[in-house]
Amino acid sequence: MQTLKNSKTIPKSDSPIEEMLETLQKENERLSSLLNVAQSLSNVMDIDELLFKIMEVVRHQLSADRCTVFLVDSERNELWSKVAHGLKNEIRFPIGKGIAGYVARTGETLNIKDAYSDSRFNPEVDKKTGYKTHNLLTMPMRNKQNEIIGVFQVLNKKSGPFNEEDEELLNAISSIAASAIENAQLYDELHKSFVSFMETLSTTLDARDYITSGHSRRVTLYAVQVARLMKLPKEEVELIRYSALLHDIGKLGVPEIVLFKNKKLTEEEYNIIRRHAALSRSILQKIHFQRHLKDIPEIAASHHEKVDGTGYPQGLKGEQIPLGGKILAVCDVFDALTSRRQYKDRMDIVEVTEILDRETGTAFEPYVVYQFKNITLNVLIEILEFGHKGDFNPEDLSLLRNFTLKDLTRIGRHGAENEEEQRAWETFQFYYQRKYKGE
Amino acid sequence: MQTLKNSKTIPKSDSPIEEMLETLQKENERLSSLLNVAQSLSNVMDIDELLFKIMEVVRHQLSADRCTVFLVDSERNELWSKVAHGLKNEIRFPIGKGIAGYVARTGETLNIKDAYSDSRFNPEVDKKTGYKTHNLLTMPMRNKQNEIIGVFQVLNKKSGPFNEEDEELLNAISSIAASAIENAQLYDELHKSFVSFMETLSTTLDARDYITSGHSRRVTLYAVQVARLMKLPKEEVELIRYSALLHDIGKLGVPEIVLFKNKKLTEEEYNIIRRHAALSRSILQKIHFQRHLKDIPEIAASHHEKVDGTGYPQGLKGEQIPLGGKILAVCDVFDALTSRRQYKDRMDIVEVTEILDRETGTAFEPYVVYQFKNITLNVLIEILEFGHKGDFNPEDLSLLRNFTLKDLTRIGRHGAENEEEQRAWETFQFYYQRKYKGE
Repeated sequence: MQTLKNSKTIPKSDSPIEEMLETLQKENERLSSLLNVAQSLSNVMDIDELLFKIMEVVRHQLSADRCTVFLVDSERNELWSKVAHGLKNEIRFPIGKGIAGYVARTGETLNIKDAYSDSRFNPEVDKKTGYKTHNLLTMPMRNKQNEIIGVFQVLNKKSGPFNEEDEELLNAISSIAASAIENAQLYDELHKSFVSFMETLSTTLDARDYITSGHSRRVTLYAVQVARLMKLPKEEVELIRYSALLHDIGKLGVPEIVLFKNKKLTEEEYNIIRRHAALSRSILQKIHFQRHLKDIPEIAASHHEKVDGTGYPQGLKGEQIPLGGKILAVCDVFDALTSRRQYKDRMDIVEVTEILDRETGTAFEPYVVYQFKNITLNVLIEILEFGHKGDFNPEDLSLLRNFTLKDLTRIGRHGAENEEEQRAWETFQFYYQRKYKGE
Repeated sequence: MQTLKNSKTIPKSDSPIEEMLETLQKENERLSSLLNVAQSLSNVMDIDELLFKIMEVVRHQLSADRCTVFLVDSERNELWSKVAHGLKNEIRFPIGKGIAGYVARTGETLNIKDAYSDSRFNPEVDKKTGYKTHNLLTMPMRNKQNEIIGVFQVLNKKSGPFNEEDEELLNAISSIAASAIENAQLYDELHKSFVSFMETLSTTLDARDYITSGHSRRVTLYAVQVARLMKLPKEEVELIRYSALLHDIGKLGVPEIVLFKNKKLTEEEYNIIRRHAALSRSILQKIHFQRHLKDIPEIAASHHEKVDGTGYPQGLKGEQIPLGGKILAVCDVFDALTSRRQYKDRMDIVEVTEILDRETGTAFEPYVVYQFKNITLNVLIEILEFGHKGDFNPEDLSLLRNFTLKDLTRIGRHGAENEEEQRAWETFQFYYQRKYKGE
């Protein structure tokens, strides 16, 4: 087991006392820094934020220009890094490849004082990025079980190459960082697990009937867009996202014979179906959600409420309806109106927005409809087609990116004002009305 | 914002150099200890284990006899502690009550040098526990937002009362501990959320039909008992627990009209129902489970496999069936046989075990049946009655604790060997056969 070197041997008494003092003071500073590092990393559970913070800390402590943390993906036998100084996208490469890969494989530390005169250094990356590497320190990161879980790569010390003290400091930081990373990964894995569970359940429930197939996922995607356009804080977007995924879970309590009846429903049957909203609440209330997600049951239950108070299950009015519920209401109806039905084309998109407009202020909150119409057409068409088989031409998507649903409706009503608008209209219609065999 | 005092002011140059040296050395030791504390707390995400570790660390660092960490429950405005030196059960009391409650409310640190001559000290707790408190240090624990999230109570310093240095050290440890506790709580909340989600879903699915109501929860309880009797590691028990909760999730893909038909099924309908096992796998495979739970889909899918290879969906034989699947198979059948059916009493318990015995080696793994019969009767009856309305007489439960299902079967077959056995038999039968109105 690896342990942290917390205190160094104090020089023997034959060294001058001043030297001892200096050594102690240096050691004091080192310990103080390390304690500060431990403190500053201890409260970050978001893995991306944590990795970024670690890189900043190392860069600062070692007076270097850049630092990258690569993590080991043991399932794929690769190293990867999502956030790095000077990098935009995730990079991945096999363990064993390059200097970082070599360090991950062997566990050796490589301190390269002059990159371009060292055969192990591959100047290709510099060529691609336009960066000039002078010196670099690459060190494995080990967890408490002494397994290599990642690699530090620190570039260009500000004054001369990295020395032994830098190596020792990085080694100590590495051990602190490894614990923080393992905690954050544990949390991240559990979180992914929870979210994928909700998504899978939601998809499975919808798929019981071809008519509702993909409904909750699309409603979720719309709702997240609206929440983002409203600039709601991250935690509230998450709350709305999960409420949307689960809004129809109450349908589990409605007999399929009524739920999927494809003839006209009797009044009694319709009342049975309407129970699903209240059932969503009572099911979701049994779940011990985290504090910032406590309102999921209320939001999910209110997706059929109307601002004028004529909705169900509670007949809530205006401000009594939670914002999430108001967002779900619009997205839910939009998805129902734009869904492909057996033997039927999709409803004309202008007609769909006319229905939204007509219900604004009675069923729907005006600001929600306003923001819904601000969704750009590239995003809209990708959601509309989510769960269908079609692909998109990237050029079409970049054309559609310049227009919103509001623009589309105007073009539909009053005609295109220029050629680009005409092309956008036609492009949208092409995807909106395309047909799939067997769907 | 509270910050950690990492380095102290170094004495001015007019103090003798030896004094400086000593101060620096002390400070060095203090920082080393704190860094060790930070390291040792950083890798514990289980909240109970962490609290225990924190108390041990404090006790050791402050040379005290006992330490308790109370946590703030802000929803209930209470302090609570689950694990404490000399405590068996969770204790809870309102913020404001007693010394710890006072400290939580005011944020003051109380260093009481002689407990029995201090009016703030309440000797009642000592009276109850038989412990003798001499001196105590009680300090709030604050997070990075400076909110009080808990209270330390350290009892009986080994040499004399707590001094200012102890206070400073505890303050520094407190700040490290607060971060670790908040991380562990975050993980714990998410974990509870995930588990309660699976439980709620499982219960909701079973409840669609009164015949299966409570089935998955009972199967889960049996399966966990068997896994524990087999002394499987904690992570494997968890794996089996969740597999059991979700084993019938594939029924979501079987039309209710077939699933809940209460007349004899045609061969075709029976084949449709049998699909649920494979459907459980395909639904669960879409979920991104944590590494130690990766086998949930396989285990859930194999609950109708038989060791002789005549089961479904894959017709796996013996060792090809995962252990979890073999456990589920026995628990699933046991629950089906012992369930109350409309207008029908439960099947005689001796008859039930005879069926298990008959199928041992053909359908069931012998060792699983062996351990299933080792479940004690108090546990068995509580699971059998789980989800029904009845209560238990505690005395009956302690009588039943002395016998297993194996004993019960012997008594049923060959008669009781003594009075206690006779009473156990009658007590079990009383609960097993009691009736509820409307059930």
